[in-house]
Amino acid sequence: MFDVKNEKQLAAEAAVGLVKEGMIIGLGSGSTAAFAIEAIGKLVAGGMQLSGIPTSVASEVLAKEAGIPLTTLEENPVVDLTIDGADRFDDRLNLIKGGGGAMLREKIVASCSKRLVIITDAGKYANPLSGFPVPVEVVPFSHHPIALQFEEQGLRPVIRQREGAPFVTDEGNYILDLQIDQIDNPQELERKLDLPGVVGHGLFTGMADELFMGDGNSVQHFTRDPSST
Amino acid sequence: MFDVKNEKQLAAEAAVGLVKEGMIIGLGSGSTAAFAIEAIGKLVAGGMQLSGIPTSVASEVLAKEAGIPLTTLEENPVVDLTIDGADRFDDRLNLIKGGGGAMLREKIVASCSKRLVIITDAGKYANPLSGFPVPVEVVPFSHHPIALQFEEQGLRPVIRQREGAPFVTDEGNYILDLQIDQIDNPQELERKLDLPGVVGHGLFTGMADELFMGDGNSVQHFTRDPSST
Repeated sequence: MFDVKNEKQLAAEAAVGLVKEGMIIGLGSGSTAAFAIEAIGKLVAGGMQLSGIPTSVASEVLAKEAGIPLTTLEENPVVDLTIDGADRFDDRLNLIKGGGGAMLREKIVASCSKRLVIITDAGKYANPLSGFPVPVEVVPFSHHPIALQFEEQGLRPVIRQREGAPFVTDEGNYILDLQIDQIDNPQELERKLDLPGVVGHGLFTGMADELFMGDGNSVQHFTRDPSST
Repeated sequence: MFDVKNEKQLAAEAAVGLVKEGMIIGLGSGSTAAFAIEAIGKLVAGGMQLSGIPTSVASEVLAKEAGIPLTTLEENPVVDLTIDGADRFDDRLNLIKGGGGAMLREKIVASCSKRLVIITDAGKYANPLSGFPVPVEVVPFSHHPIALQFEEQGLRPVIRQREGAPFVTDEGNYILDLQIDQIDNPQELERKLDLPGVVGHGLFTGMADELFMGDGNSVQHFTRDPSST
């Protein structure tokens, strides 16, 4: 059996090979992105000039520990390269993200990026997307009627809990995890999620440009065909 | 010259004529909705059983003063009737709302309502929609890149300020007011506003069922043709 941690690290290091002097780098969230933050910290320690924009409070802490100079979207609204993980990806590089609950800031930073590079272990590939719930971030005021509407559509929402209370995102919202067996048409699902009170969700379609997947002791590299969706 | 306050009150009282025993009522925000809350309070004082769901902290305060029993979307996710104001409306009852910054909760409650009734004075009619900025609620983390994207599209965003700092909504977000001269195609504009980090906006298309407009000493009544958008 292969070591998942090793796969994550190999993917992260391959992606960090794209980092160049002077770049503004979007710093993803989660255990795979943490390896990238560590590797970017080593580039900084070696003298490379760059700045990072963290996508979560947790990745901000890691970036500071790694010695990466930080900036904001207010100072630098255009990001050269974002390196982030994903919970699932399909053949068209559509993603499910948000197992850690940071998908709103992740999507904002991704949408400001010239290049979005995803890093995963081999267990994250699923075509069509499946095996992981789709998180939907909702304002607390509206979580109940939205959950009812999702239920009526067969999307099986479950409110994410932590220690017996609703999990609260960095932006102060709740998460409904949709227990969908298989997503045959991600774009169609996105349209169903577009309800008043929905702040964001973890489906990323047409956003990832490239993906490095650690696979045993090697790394597979995928690129998205921009003409396909 | 006619009295705008009187027009608002006439419209509010006409709409409150639709309130019936046992209803769950969405309570709008703003100066016109305040007249409706007052009139609903009189129905309660007269012995009518009903419950209200306020769309803002401000309307919650008014409803309590008026003696209206309150409930929540958690207890009552289906609202029988919502009575709310608008800053502008067109011939198809498309609306611009959010001068007061409460459009996110207003839209959530409206979307949970069997019937959305709008009340205005005569100065709010504009076909096509014009003369009032379109407010867009954005997470603070993303307001700068979103403003840049709107600028590139010619939508002329201005961040709403209060006492020299960004205005903060009930949900903790910022507002970008789009200074658009005239909205010829509200649906097309809605699609442009759909960016990561946008939490909601004040364009309401295809939502209002009826509208009462105070006009001098009379009230005009409009209904939306559901087949037209």
